[in-house]
Amino acid sequence: MSPLGRLYGLGIGPGDPELLTLKAHRILTTVPVIAYPTLENGKVLARAIVADFIRPDQIEIPMPLPFSVERSSQPYYDIAAEKIAEQLSLGRDVAVLCVGDPMLYGSFMYILNRLAGRFAIEVVPGISSVMASAAMLGVPITYRNDVFSIMPGTLEAEILRDRLSQVDAAAIIKLGRHFAKVRDILAELGLLNRALYIERATLPNQKIIPITEVDPEAVTYWSLILVPSTTQPQ
Amino acid sequence: MSPLGRLYGLGIGPGDPELLTLKAHRILTTVPVIAYPTLENGKVLARAIVADFIRPDQIEIPMPLPFSVERSSQPYYDIAAEKIAEQLSLGRDVAVLCVGDPMLYGSFMYILNRLAGRFAIEVVPGISSVMASAAMLGVPITYRNDVFSIMPGTLEAEILRDRLSQVDAAAIIKLGRHFAKVRDILAELGLLNRALYIERATLPNQKIIPITEVDPEAVTYWSLILVPSTTQPQ
Repeated sequence: MSPLGRLYGLGIGPGDPELLTLKAHRILTTVPVIAYPTLENGKVLARAIVADFIRPDQIEIPMPLPFSVERSSQPYYDIAAEKIAEQLSLGRDVAVLCVGDPMLYGSFMYILNRLAGRFAIEVVPGISSVMASAAMLGVPITYRNDVFSIMPGTLEAEILRDRLSQVDAAAIIKLGRHFAKVRDILAELGLLNRALYIERATLPNQKIIPITEVDPEAVTYWSLILVPSTTQPQ
Repeated sequence: MSPLGRLYGLGIGPGDPELLTLKAHRILTTVPVIAYPTLENGKVLARAIVADFIRPDQIEIPMPLPFSVERSSQPYYDIAAEKIAEQLSLGRDVAVLCVGDPMLYGSFMYILNRLAGRFAIEVVPGISSVMASAAMLGVPITYRNDVFSIMPGTLEAEILRDRLSQVDAAAIIKLGRHFAKVRDILAELGLLNRALYIERATLPNQKIIPITEVDPEAVTYWSLILVPSTTQPQ
């Protein structure tokens, strides 16, 4: 019997293929099997980012996921995890592609939770869109004793308001149709003049738009608002 | 007159040289000049991480910094910024090495603030020790609607207690001699059983120690405590 394969949770960064780590690149180009989420609307960001690195002889496991809050993704992860387990059982290493970092709001965690204990698992951290956005905006996030919070725009207004009122710096992710709510709360808290909007950071179609000029109807899931620190270094 | 050089803020990740991005590696190995912080105690972590990639013909600018809260670092940054400006003025690109990510509590920001406007600046994001620590611990940080906060252990106990009492997940960095204070607050808030300790994540001398067994006297600056989310994905 062949020994079991190793499962990699592979952080591939925010979008620019050059923001893969040397380690992610090495593993991606040497494993026999790669898996990646695909959405019903046809978007396959993870695979697109690394398309130039994929070899024709690699086995690909697309992991279809519903892009809808009405339906649970969990049955889809059950199916994907078993397809991956099948390859691991055959002794093949499998790399699951994760946009950004696997441990920060990543879908890899659902695969990890299902296969932990059955197989050896290694997580390779990736550049988070949060840090990439700050780099593209050219704006430091935090100095010295600042507290920095990352929060989803999907939170209820009251919770968002409470959390944003206390932090020194913040990133609000998963904006999409929640943009107007987030913008209004930032205005209410007097934070709108500090807030910076960026979408598709590091991708060829990246856009940086003054936050007061953003069309709420056109905001993608792949966007974020950064509220940088105002600490003045001495 | 030669055109001016470009300044790079180069995120080089948490310690494992393989966690440089392809982009950071490309820039590091092609620029004529590299600069990096050095501490009076002789520690030069940034240069050590990428030592194998540095070519003998590259010009090196060590940037001495005091490792003491009693003295301001700012006069040291003035001197370093002018040394870097001199090279940029000669038309040479300069890469400033930044452990972790340049925009997250990084010392590069002090160089950025001094040279912005005078030279073209490009920031290359890096793997933060926070994400690297979660990967090494094998523990997801955040799911779905979780709020995640990064905060320095150097904060006053009262502020730390307040911030930690509200977040879904947290990373407490810059521990060093503040470890005991942080540990006691976590215990007070009932978070000690969730808290995970790691030092020198991804370096050969990385250590993961049960938090109740950590010797407060032996805690390094290069350590952190992760309090992962308890959200159960459905």
